[in-house]
Amino acid sequence: MTLRIAEIFGPTIQGEGALIGEPTVFVRAGGCDYRCAWCDSMHAVDSAFRRDWTRMSAGAVWEKVQDLAGGLPLTVSLSGGNPAIQDFGPLIALGRAAGYRFACETQGSIARPWFAELDTLVLSPKPPSSGETVDWDAFAACREAGRRALRTVMKIVIFDRTDYEWAKRAHARHPDLPLYLQPGNPDVDLDTPVDPQALADRLGWLTQAAMDDRWFAPRILPQLHVLIWGNKRGV
Amino acid sequence: MTLRIAEIFGPTIQGEGALIGEPTVFVRAGGCDYRCAWCDSMHAVDSAFRRDWTRMSAGAVWEKVQDLAGGLPLTVSLSGGNPAIQDFGPLIALGRAAGYRFACETQGSIARPWFAELDTLVLSPKPPSSGETVDWDAFAACREAGRRALRTVMKIVIFDRTDYEWAKRAHARHPDLPLYLQPGNPDVDLDTPVDPQALADRLGWLTQAAMDDRWFAPRILPQLHVLIWGNKRGV
Repeated sequence: MTLRIAEIFGPTIQGEGALIGEPTVFVRAGGCDYRCAWCDSMHAVDSAFRRDWTRMSAGAVWEKVQDLAGGLPLTVSLSGGNPAIQDFGPLIALGRAAGYRFACETQGSIARPWFAELDTLVLSPKPPSSGETVDWDAFAACREAGRRALRTVMKIVIFDRTDYEWAKRAHARHPDLPLYLQPGNPDVDLDTPVDPQALADRLGWLTQAAMDDRWFAPRILPQLHVLIWGNKRGV
Repeated sequence: MTLRIAEIFGPTIQGEGALIGEPTVFVRAGGCDYRCAWCDSMHAVDSAFRRDWTRMSAGAVWEKVQDLAGGLPLTVSLSGGNPAIQDFGPLIALGRAAGYRFACETQGSIARPWFAELDTLVLSPKPPSSGETVDWDAFAACREAGRRALRTVMKIVIFDRTDYEWAKRAHARHPDLPLYLQPGNPDVDLDTPVDPQALADRLGWLTQAAMDDRWFAPRILPQLHVLIWGNKRGV
């Protein structure tokens, strides 16, 4: 059985969410059950790119991760696309046996038994601006599948006021999940330079919105990789 | 007994370190036993500013914190100056009784029994560029005093390669403390606009240095408040 892999890169820092700033190697799975309007990883989502994806065994992915990490245990971040489409259990088993930690980010649409083997399960339900609709029963099933994970958190990308209000209701459904909010990045074109000031302004807007409401539940964080490298891939 | 307070402000987000992105009210203590060359809070350090500091009882500080938070429990961040010069035990007791959490950042030069009552103790030893010299016995005493705190972490500001190498040795002294590295901000003048691109470049440099060395122990984070608000006070 092989995995469809869009890219493997690092070590670099995790740019967002619960593990922000943490050194990591990314394993980006190819394929997704969503088509978010503002997707920043379409090269791992749209099957038009599937010829760029590599079919690799779990063992081959593990070799590549070790090679990038120089054999030094760190956190491996499974992302996509939606990594939950595929079976990452064998890769996680190989890595954990060598002391590596695993984080996975998924929208929470497909539950997998291997969620239980993660150190960090990031469930990232998509707000209205995405054009997708969350299946909250599937989301709950993902939580249940990850019940034995070291921790499960919720991350929501916010593009506008509608998303922000939606995030409050999403949090109310799962108030016990640590919540991370992240301003959306409307400039995902590879060739458009990112304006750090615009990124700072979006973070300021979101912070102000939550503080004005005295909504203290979420941690509010930017995308550091966009700040440092813009929309460049592989960093 | 009164506290010398330089400023109380918020709610805003914690801009750096272990609690990055977390909503908080800051209580900034006046007075410091250090004079770091690049201090970004000299208005709370230099006794030339002491007429701007307010003498307040713990009860008065607590009233102000509650007022800013709208009576909704959040994390209170004790900073300075060096808050360890003074006795924040009574304030912490008042706040904890109402469900507030407390974090404190200090250089680790003065140990206090009330460190044990904290949720997060941030020990921030100062690297060579500061012009200060760390007393590692005092640092160890601070760790010991905070042994009952929910967690203790180490944060080091990095201005140059010398600081970076020093941070590795500091980490080797306390390898079990979660470590946070933060690029220094050389532009602390209130009236000089901060260049977000320069901040991004410093973060990129520090990230690259650690990744080139495959040094995966630290989390590497910027100062979000500087990104959003520059050197403006009270945010």
